[in-house]
Amino acid sequence: MRNVCVVGVGMSKWGEVWRKSLRGLFVDAALEAVKNSGVDHLDSLYVGCMASGPFVSQEHLGALMADYLGMPGLPAMRVESACASGGMAFRLAFLEVAGGFSDIVMASGVEKMTDCSGDDATAALAMAADQEYEVFNGATFPGLYALMATAHMAKYGTTREMLSAIAVKNHKNGAKNPVAQYPFEITMEGVEKSVMIADPLHILDCSPITDGAAAVIVTTEEIAKKLGKPYIKVLGSGVGTDTIQLAQRADMTAIKAATIAAERAFKMAGKTIKDVQFAEVHDCFTIAELVVLESLGIYEKGKAGPAILAGETALDGKFPVNTSGGLKSKGHPVGATGVAQVVEVYKQLTGQAENGRQMPGSPKIGMTQNMGGSGASSVVHILEVT
Amino acid sequence: MRNVCVVGVGMSKWGEVWRKSLRGLFVDAALEAVKNSGVDHLDSLYVGCMASGPFVSQEHLGALMADYLGMPGLPAMRVESACASGGMAFRLAFLEVAGGFSDIVMASGVEKMTDCSGDDATAALAMAADQEYEVFNGATFPGLYALMATAHMAKYGTTREMLSAIAVKNHKNGAKNPVAQYPFEITMEGVEKSVMIADPLHILDCSPITDGAAAVIVTTEEIAKKLGKPYIKVLGSGVGTDTIQLAQRADMTAIKAATIAAERAFKMAGKTIKDVQFAEVHDCFTIAELVVLESLGIYEKGKAGPAILAGETALDGKFPVNTSGGLKSKGHPVGATGVAQVVEVYKQLTGQAENGRQMPGSPKIGMTQNMGGSGASSVVHILEVT
Repeated sequence: MRNVCVVGVGMSKWGEVWRKSLRGLFVDAALEAVKNSGVDHLDSLYVGCMASGPFVSQEHLGALMADYLGMPGLPAMRVESACASGGMAFRLAFLEVAGGFSDIVMASGVEKMTDCSGDDATAALAMAADQEYEVFNGATFPGLYALMATAHMAKYGTTREMLSAIAVKNHKNGAKNPVAQYPFEITMEGVEKSVMIADPLHILDCSPITDGAAAVIVTTEEIAKKLGKPYIKVLGSGVGTDTIQLAQRADMTAIKAATIAAERAFKMAGKTIKDVQFAEVHDCFTIAELVVLESLGIYEKGKAGPAILAGETALDGKFPVNTSGGLKSKGHPVGATGVAQVVEVYKQLTGQAENGRQMPGSPKIGMTQNMGGSGASSVVHILEVT
Repeated sequence: MRNVCVVGVGMSKWGEVWRKSLRGLFVDAALEAVKNSGVDHLDSLYVGCMASGPFVSQEHLGALMADYLGMPGLPAMRVESACASGGMAFRLAFLEVAGGFSDIVMASGVEKMTDCSGDDATAALAMAADQEYEVFNGATFPGLYALMATAHMAKYGTTREMLSAIAVKNHKNGAKNPVAQYPFEITMEGVEKSVMIADPLHILDCSPITDGAAAVIVTTEEIAKKLGKPYIKVLGSGVGTDTIQLAQRADMTAIKAATIAAERAFKMAGKTIKDVQFAEVHDCFTIAELVVLESLGIYEKGKAGPAILAGETALDGKFPVNTSGGLKSKGHPVGATGVAQVVEVYKQLTGQAENGRQMPGSPKIGMTQNMGGSGASSVVHILEVT
């Protein structure tokens, strides 16, 4: 297996981007990644996207994006694993370079959600759940994550305040991220007084509907060195799955797919969670961030909430989480999110996080955790700067 | 790079399958492949599917199918490249095993098209074209392929009779395929008198709307030998793309993406087209089979039509094409087609083609060519029995 590196990253502006179509968002991110890396060609392209069919009546994104990037002919395909599509695209780029099949591969993700051609964005997103047993009976994701929150509160005494603290912390970070959809701070009181979506989750517990794209250049260490740009190394990659239905799991207070994915990634990396100094995790809802921190072993079960309240996951805390602002503040164009997590870890590890968002202490190892649905699929990467 | 083999295959019944949902079709094919191969576990799963969101409001097929196969936890993801999704899933399984990341991987494809929850199946399929420039202006695939047919007729003198001969030949083969959707023979006159869809294409020039799934087990040669089942080797894999819009291509009478994909696959295989004895190609329309045979270099430009008329591509011809019945007779559940092509090559190379469909002469090397849209993406595999 060859050493694999990330050598350049790009992101489009995230938000309600009316002036750009799906392909325009992708090209913005992709060209920035090409420019920042200094590569003169690509060998292959992976596009993570959850639901461009239901959202904007467009499938076949591999060929489409290769074409609009000005590279028709380029081997290209789309990868989908609901909201984990971006992380899966990054994994495939990693495998293709690590296995020696290609030298320079772009991993990208894109989603155009705000001009949905179907019923509405929530209906399109619900296609990540079990259509026949969950969606048919009226369950959508705010409801499913509300069930997890209620179960976690009942089992571990998790409080409203702990959930609010996650949203407040992520907006504080996101306020410093130039591409964030909601780059402003919010208050604990603001979260608690915001409109109720699915008890106990208020709207400020939920990540938004977003248009956006992200792209990274994945290559060998040899090429990364020659390019002379800052680069980071991919130490490990792991994927896990679980039952698609939340109701079929033995424990609703953990995301088993994330635990499995992390075990596999750490095994490949030859590292443990203790070697990692910060993480970008999948906070599609505030409760998701809390449950994932416990499922990854960063905190013991029931201990993440108090630690978050104590500020341990803040930008200057013991273990910063979602320094980008997370899905909550940065936005959540579902197929792009997993790639944007890699973008943030790249920036933090290479000291390029903007506007005072750089975490202190020159971190050496960071991780990403991206997931789909109510956690039926998850993908974890361990990344290091040398 | 490790030697990679296909050691067991499975297919669901193809057709209008009202008793089975998307997941049921997948499980039928997947369990048959597991059983036929004799493997006791999987390391990973790829699911090729074009448009399960628009068709049946279900995304997130990796996790869903791992779950319904009884293997929650299994790393799994969906791959999409329109009608080339299945071929791309097979490619990823090949790369994962060849690169040494996994030992036993399932490549599968599935599509449930006959109970479309969206506008209609043609609208869902049109999402493989350029939504903003082609579909918006009313172009769907019968129309796009009719343009290719008209151009080919004008440039090379291709005739109505040549197109009809393709449909007749594929139905003759498909009549012997136990899973085919339309397992009956048709006549030249029948094709020409069938209803006109998009001049010059009649309905019997078109592949049908189909429910179906296919699955194959991809593993190392070492494991394949130990399992003691017939196996074939993957010699080469190649992907190519082209402009998504047909109108932007310099030449409408060739599929450049197929040419590029084949060049890449043959380069990896260390073989040429002259080493290949038969092929499964993407006959979504009769004209597609003809153009692809020329684009792959099996025939020179303008020479495929006369060769087809002369019976060269028949089951007992010089170079049999679509011995399975092709998309035309076997059916075209879009995401499953590319995997089913591998199933047929496996059966032919291991002498297991049913009902007198076995081609004569114990072939040693076969190939598959699968494509998406009007040929904006294509994937080619070269397969050998030793």
